Amino acid sequence: MSNNPSFVLQAVERVEFEERPIPDIRDTEVLVEVKKTGICGSDVHYLVHGRIGDFIVEKPMVLGHESSGIVYKVGNKVKHLQPGDRVAMEPGATCRVCEDCKRGRYELCPDIVFAATPPYDGTLCRYYPIPGDLCYKLPDNLTLEDGAMMEPLSVGTHSVANIGNLKAQENIVVFGAGPVGLLCMAVAKALGARRIIAVDILSSRLEFAKSYAATDVYLPPKPNEGESKIQYSERNAKTMQEQLGIELRGRSAIDLVVDASGAEASIQTGILIARHGGRYVQVGMGAPNVTLPITTALVKELAIKGSFRYGPDDYALAIALAAAGKIDLKPLITHRFKFEEAKEAFQANRVGKGADGKAVIKAVISGPDVSPEDH
Amino acid sequence: MSNNPSFVLQAVERVEFEERPIPDIRDTEVLVEVKKTGICGSDVHYLVHGRIGDFIVEKPMVLGHESSGIVYKVGNKVKHLQPGDRVAMEPGATCRVCEDCKRGRYELCPDIVFAATPPYDGTLCRYYPIPGDLCYKLPDNLTLEDGAMMEPLSVGTHSVANIGNLKAQENIVVFGAGPVGLLCMAVAKALGARRIIAVDILSSRLEFAKSYAATDVYLPPKPNEGESKIQYSERNAKTMQEQLGIELRGRSAIDLVVDASGAEASIQTGILIARHGGRYVQVGMGAPNVTLPITTALVKELAIKGSFRYGPDDYALAIALAAAGKIDLKPLITHRFKFEEAKEAFQANRVGKGADGKAVIKAVISGPDVSPEDH
Amino acid sequence: MSNNPSFVLQAVERVEFEERPIPDIRDTEVLVEVKKTGICGSDVHYLVHGRIGDFIVEKPMVLGHESSGIVYKVGNKVKHLQPGDRVAMEPGATCRVCEDCKRGRYELCPDIVFAATPPYDGTLCRYYPIPGDLCYKLPDNLTLEDGAMMEPLSVGTHSVANIGNLKAQENIVVFGAGPVGLLCMAVAKALGARRIIAVDILSSRLEFAKSYAATDVYLPPKPNEGESKIQYSERNAKTMQEQLGIELRGRSAIDLVVDASGAEASIQTGILIARHGGRYVQVGMGAPNVTLPITTALVKELAIKGSFRYGPDDYALAIALAAAGKIDLKPLITHRFKFEEAKEAFQANRVGKGADGKAVIKAVISGPDVSPEDH
Amino acid sequence: MSNNPSFVLQAVERVEFEERPIPDIRDTEVLVEVKKTGICGSDVHYLVHGRIGDFIVEKPMVLGHESSGIVYKVGNKVKHLQPGDRVAMEPGATCRVCEDCKRGRYELCPDIVFAATPPYDGTLCRYYPIPGDLCYKLPDNLTLEDGAMMEPLSVGTHSVANIGNLKAQENIVVFGAGPVGLLCMAVAKALGARRIIAVDILSSRLEFAKSYAATDVYLPPKPNEGESKIQYSERNAKTMQEQLGIELRGRSAIDLVVDASGAEASIQTGILIARHGGRYVQVGMGAPNVTLPITTALVKELAIKGSFRYGPDDYALAIALAAAGKIDLKPLITHRFKFEEAKEAFQANRVGKGADGKAVIKAVISGPDVSPEDH
Repeated sequence: MSNNPSFVLQAVERVEFEERPIPDIRDTEVLVEVKKTGICGSDVHYLVHGRIGDFIVEKPMVLGHESSGIVYKVGNKVKHLQPGDRVAMEPGATCRVCEDCKRGRYELCPDIVFAATPPYDGTLCRYYPIPGDLCYKLPDNLTLEDGAMMEPLSVGTHSVANIGNLKAQENIVVFGAGPVGLLCMAVAKALGARRIIAVDILSSRLEFAKSYAATDVYLPPKPNEGESKIQYSERNAKTMQEQLGIELRGRSAIDLVVDASGAEASIQTGILIARHGGRYVQVGMGAPNVTLPITTALVKELAIKGSFRYGPDDYALAIALAAAGKIDLKPLITHRFKFEEAKEAFQANRVGKGADGKAVIKAVISGPDVSPEDH
Repeated sequence: MSNNPSFVLQAVERVEFEERPIPDIRDTEVLVEVKKTGICGSDVHYLVHGRIGDFIVEKPMVLGHESSGIVYKVGNKVKHLQPGDRVAMEPGATCRVCEDCKRGRYELCPDIVFAATPPYDGTLCRYYPIPGDLCYKLPDNLTLEDGAMMEPLSVGTHSVANIGNLKAQENIVVFGAGPVGLLCMAVAKALGARRIIAVDILSSRLEFAKSYAATDVYLPPKPNEGESKIQYSERNAKTMQEQLGIELRGRSAIDLVVDASGAEASIQTGILIARHGGRYVQVGMGAPNVTLPITTALVKELAIKGSFRYGPDDYALAIALAAAGKIDLKPLITHRFKFEEAKEAFQANRVGKGADGKAVIKAVISGPDVSPEDH
Repeated sequence: MSNNPSFVLQAVERVEFEERPIPDIRDTEVLVEVKKTGICGSDVHYLVHGRIGDFIVEKPMVLGHESSGIVYKVGNKVKHLQPGDRVAMEPGATCRVCEDCKRGRYELCPDIVFAATPPYDGTLCRYYPIPGDLCYKLPDNLTLEDGAMMEPLSVGTHSVANIGNLKAQENIVVFGAGPVGLLCMAVAKALGARRIIAVDILSSRLEFAKSYAATDVYLPPKPNEGESKIQYSERNAKTMQEQLGIELRGRSAIDLVVDASGAEASIQTGILIARHGGRYVQVGMGAPNVTLPITTALVKELAIKGSFRYGPDDYALAIALAAAGKIDLKPLITHRFKFEEAKEAFQANRVGKGADGKAVIKAVISGPDVSPEDH
Repeated sequence: MSNNPSFVLQAVERVEFEERPIPDIRDTEVLVEVKKTGICGSDVHYLVHGRIGDFIVEKPMVLGHESSGIVYKVGNKVKHLQPGDRVAMEPGATCRVCEDCKRGRYELCPDIVFAATPPYDGTLCRYYPIPGDLCYKLPDNLTLEDGAMMEPLSVGTHSVANIGNLKAQENIVVFGAGPVGLLCMAVAKALGARRIIAVDILSSRLEFAKSYAATDVYLPPKPNEGESKIQYSERNAKTMQEQLGIELRGRSAIDLVVDASGAEASIQTGILIARHGGRYVQVGMGAPNVTLPITTALVKELAIKGSFRYGPDDYALAIALAAAGKIDLKPLITHRFKFEEAKEAFQANRVGKGADGKAVIKAVISGPDVSPEDH
C-alpha cells in the first residue's frame, strides 16, 4: 500500500515530496507515525553539498532524523510498546553483534543504519519502521516536540555526561552557542555544574545562552592583523582568563571544555584554557585538520576525547532530565512548519532566520496528517 | 663541610666541576651518595639551549636527574631506610598539600622541586638530599645501574600502564625508538601486549627495537615532493596498515598508540592508525603546536591523553617489573663514564655516538668516588 | 602560655574542663580559634565506652572533631590563609608519604592523626593546631555552624559522590535517617538523584527526612515470630518493592544503596533491593559481622564498597554544594550549647533529646570565648 | 530430518540418549557440529538435584554447555564464518535489546538463552544452532579441546581481568583450586601477577595448583573445637599472613582476592586478608547467605564484586591468552570420553575420580560421530 508521503532529497539542491509504500516491519520493530521532526545542520548539508565526508548521496534519500511520533504497529517481540504510545525515536539502528555494540559503545558500530545518512532513508515521512528498543515512551509531561528534541539533547548527554563525565560543582566552558552547544550547556546545568561559560562570536547567541543555561558568557576579540591563529588563541585564552577570573588550577579552573563549534580558534583556546589534569571533549565537526597546542596538552596531562552521536543511556538520561524539569526544551524551538512546508523549513535553517526575521535555533516540521482510512 | 663535587651547568655550553657543601637534611629526608646517573635529552638540552620552554637556567645548576645511590644519612622520621641501602631516586619532590598531590596526580604539582630543572640542582654530585619516600630500596637482583634506569623506565610505566592503561593481549604502536620509546615497548612487553610495533625513521634503531622488545617494526617512507604533511601522514598510515595487516576495528586493530617522538608526522599517523574507540598517549615533546586530524579523532571517539613524568605507583611498578625479570635494562646502557668524564659523556650524548663509534642509547655516569674520611 | 580551655575525656563517663597550654605550630600549620563543634556519635561512644574497636582511650583526650573556627596564627609556608579567615577544619592529618596518601586515598593512611581518636586530642578547646591545607576558607554565605557541619557532610560526599559515584537521575535508597543518613540524602538531592528513598524504623525520623531531602520514605514492618533475620529481610525487600514500585532492572530500579545504619536487616535488605549491576556502599558502622546474601550479590554482579571518613575533594565538594545553596544545613542543627555547657550537650546527644524535649539531630557547641588579652 | 543424537536429562538421576531433529537456523545463526564438550559442576548438579536455585528442570533437557565444534551451516547474515571452521562456542545467547546488553554487561541480560540452563537445551548433541557472533574461530595452534575449555577459561578472564581488574605485578589469592580456581590462577599468571597464592583444603589440589600456575599455596588449618566460624577465619587469616609474609599494606599486600570456592570460611578469610583499598571478587557459588566481616570491609574501603559468567571481550581474551601460549589448558583435561560414554563421564565427575582412580579436573566428551550421509 502506497500511502506514505515522504520528503526526499533527489539530488544536490533538489528536494521533492514523494508518495512511498508503507514499510513492513520485522517482529522486533515497530512502525511509527512520525509527528515532529527537527532539522539538523547535517540535513541541510546533504541538501546543499550532497555529502558529508565519505557519506555521499547517490540515490534519492528521505531527509530527517530528529523525530518523535506515535506507535502505529508493533512487532510480535516488542513488549514495552503498544499502538498509540507517544515515543522519541533514536535514529541509529546498530548491528548488535560487533564488538563495539557488545561492549557498550554502539555509537562506533560500523554497520549502523542511521536515518538520513546515505544510503539510508530518514524520518521525514508518515510511517517509519524502527527497532522497538529505539523507541522511548514519552512521559506524560513531555510533548511530541520535546520528543523530537531528544535526539540533539542526547548529543548533549553523550558529550557532557557520558564522555565528559561532568560532575556536580565542576566548571565547564562550551564553545559554540548553536543548538548542540546550547544543549550541552543545558545538560551541564541539569548536572549541577557550578560555572557554565558560553563562548560564541555572535553576541546575540550569547545573550540567548545566558538567558537559557549559561552562568557566564564570553565574546572573543577579533584577530589582529599579522597574528597567527595560535597567537590569536593564546591572546584569546589570556583575555578570557582575566575577564572571567579563570585560573589553571584550583576551584576557579575549568574542569571540562566542550567544543561544539569545530572552529580552530575555539579548539586551540579550549586546550589552553582547560585546567591541569582537565578534560576536553570535541563534539563539533569543522575543519578536518587543525593546529593543536600539543605540548600544552601533554604538560597538563589533558584527556582529549571525541564524542560521536550517542550511546547507551544517553536517550534515557535526556528524557529523564527533561521529564524532571531540569531542562526546558521549549525556548529552543523557534520555528514550526507543516509537513507541506518542509522546503520553507529547510530554507529558514539555511539562511539562519525565518520569514519572521527571527534567528532560527531549532525548526520543527510536523508529520503529514494521517488519512482517515489508516486509522 | 665542603666535600661534595658537583657537575654544574654555568651557562649555555659551559659546564664545570665544582666543590659544593654537603647539604643538610630534614627529618623526612635522607642524604644519598649518588652512584649512577643516566643522561637524558633534557640535560643536554639545557646545556645547549639553556632552557626548555619556560624553564630557563638563570644561575649555575647541577645537572642530572636519573640516579641511584647508597643511603648515607637518614632523617629521624624516615623508617624504611638505613645507611648502606641501595636506592633508586625519584627526582621530583612535590608539595604534598595541593589538590593534585592529594588526589593522586602529583606529577601535576605546580610546586614540584625537580632535579636539574631550573632553578633546582640535579643529582650529578656526591651527596644529594631527597625525601625518604622518594628513595626505593633496590631488590638484590637489581644493580645500581638498573636503579638509575628506573627514572626513564617510570616514564614508560606512566605512559603505557597508568595513562595508557594497556591490557594484556592488546596491540600497541610506539612512535620513536629512542630511550623513552624503547622503554615504553619494554613495559608493553612486560604487560603482555600481543603486538608491539616500533616506528622510527632510522632503521638501525628499528633493528635494535626488534631485538629488544618490539614484535614488529615499521620504517616510514620518505615524503613525496609537493605532498603536505597531512597527505604524507595519510599515505603513511595506509602503507603501515597494509604492510602490517592493521585494521581499524577488531583484534588486529591498534588499541593504544604512544608517541615518544614528538614529530608531527608521527602524531598524525598515530591518530590515523588507532582503532575506533582506541587510546593515544603523547609522551614525546617536540613542536609545541602540530596539525592534528581532529575530525578523525572525533569520529573514532579516540581518547588522547598527555603523559608527563610519572605519578604514584610508577616507580614501584618499574622496579617490580625489572626485579621480576620482565624487563632487562642492561642492553640499553651502551656507554659508561667516570664522574670526571662527565663532559665526554655529554658530548657522546649530544652527537649520538660514543668515541667507540657506537650509537648511544643510554650513557651512565658513575658518582664521584667517596673520600676515605667520609666513611 | 596556658590559656586554652579544653573539654577533656579523663576516663569512661568522666569529662572535665581543663586549662591547657596554647600549642605551637609548624610552618605548614595554622592555629585556629575553634568556634563551633558538632557532636558526633563517636564522641559519645568514647565517653560511654572508652573505646571504638581497637582505638582505646588510655590517657586524657580532648573530645570533638566536627569544627570550624577563625584563623589566629599562620605558619610561614601557608599561603592561602591569613588571621581572621573563617574556616572549616578537616580533622584528619595524614602522613603525606605512604602509598595511600600519594595515590589519592588518604583516608586509608595508617598514620593519620585524627582529632579525638585516641591518642590524639580533639577540637573542643580554644586553640587547635592544624595543617594549613586542611583549613577550607568559608564562602561569605556560609556560617561558622555550616562550617562545623562540613565534617559530617563530607562523610556524605565521600559515600554518595566519590565511593558511590551517584549520577544525576539515578535512584538511591539510604538506610538510616540519622545525621549521616540525612546528609547522604542531601548530597543525593544536590547531585540530582531522581528518587531518594529514606528507610528508618522511627517514623518521626522519616517525617523529617521527607521534609528535608527524601522523595520517598519506607518504614519496615516488624519481624514476625520465628522468622530468621534473612527471612525477615527477604520479606522486607519484597514489601518495599511493592510499596514503592521498585523493580530490579530498568528505570525504576535502585542504582545505589547506601547503608548508614549498620543494622544487619538494613544491610541484607539493601543487597536484595539493589538493581542488577548496581552499587552498594557501607558507611554505617554496626555489628562487626553480619549475614549477607552473597549469592544474590554474585548473580547481580553488585559492587559493594566500604566508605571510611573522607578523602581528597570531599570537603571541597561539601563546601561547594552548601555554598551553591544545593544543601541547607540549618534544619539539622537542633540544639546549641555554650562551651561551658558541653556536658549538657553530650547528655542531650546521649539520650537523643534535649532539655526542650525535642529530638536531637545535631547539637553544636560554641568555642570558649576568647580572652581579651589574646587579641 | 532426525539425525541429531543428544544426551538428555529426563528427570533427576535419569539421563538418556535420544535422536532429535536437526534444528533450523536463522540468518544470524550458524549450525555447529559439536566436537568437544567439557562437563561442568552445574551439569552434574542438574542431574543430581534437578535444579539450581530458581532454575528447575521441568521437561527433558539436553545437557552440556562447554563446547567447541566445526561450523556445518552458516546463516546469510553471518560474514566471518564458513563451513569447516573450527570454533569455540559461547553458550549464552542474549536479547541484544535490554539496557544491560546495550551498556556492555550482557551477562546480566534477564532474557539470556543459556545452554543447559532450564528450559534451554545444551550442547551435548551432534548439531547445535547458535548465533554467529558467539562462535569464535580457533587459531591454528589451538585444538578443539582447547576450544571447549574457552568456556570455563572465560569465567576466569571475567573474574580476574574484567571484574577483578588485575594488573601486572599485583598479588592475588585464589580460594578454591578446582577448575574455575585453577583457571583464575592461570589468567592471573598470564596477566603478569607477582604472587599467586592458591588456597584449598585438599593438599593434592594445592600440589597441582603449584605445578600449574600458583607461586605459593596455603593449606588452612582444621577448625578448633568450640571456635566460631569467624573466630576460625580470623585465626586462619593470621596464620596465612605469618606463613606467607603477607601484610595489609604495601608491596607484600594482597591486591585482589578471588573466591572460587563459595565456602564461608574462604569468604571470611578473603575479606580479612585483602589489603586496605583492595578488591575482592566472588565467583564461586556456595551457601546463599554467609557471615561477613562487614566492618573490616568498611574500614579497608574494600570493593567486593560479584562475577557472573562472562561478558564482552572475555572469550576473545581467553582465546588470545591461550593462543599466545600464556595459558596451557592441556594439563587440566584429565579424562576423555566418547559420546556414547557420556554417562560414565558424568559418573566420574560426580565421584571426583575416573575409573583409572585419578582425580578428575576436567572431563571432556567428544561429539557423536557424523553419519557419512551428512557430509
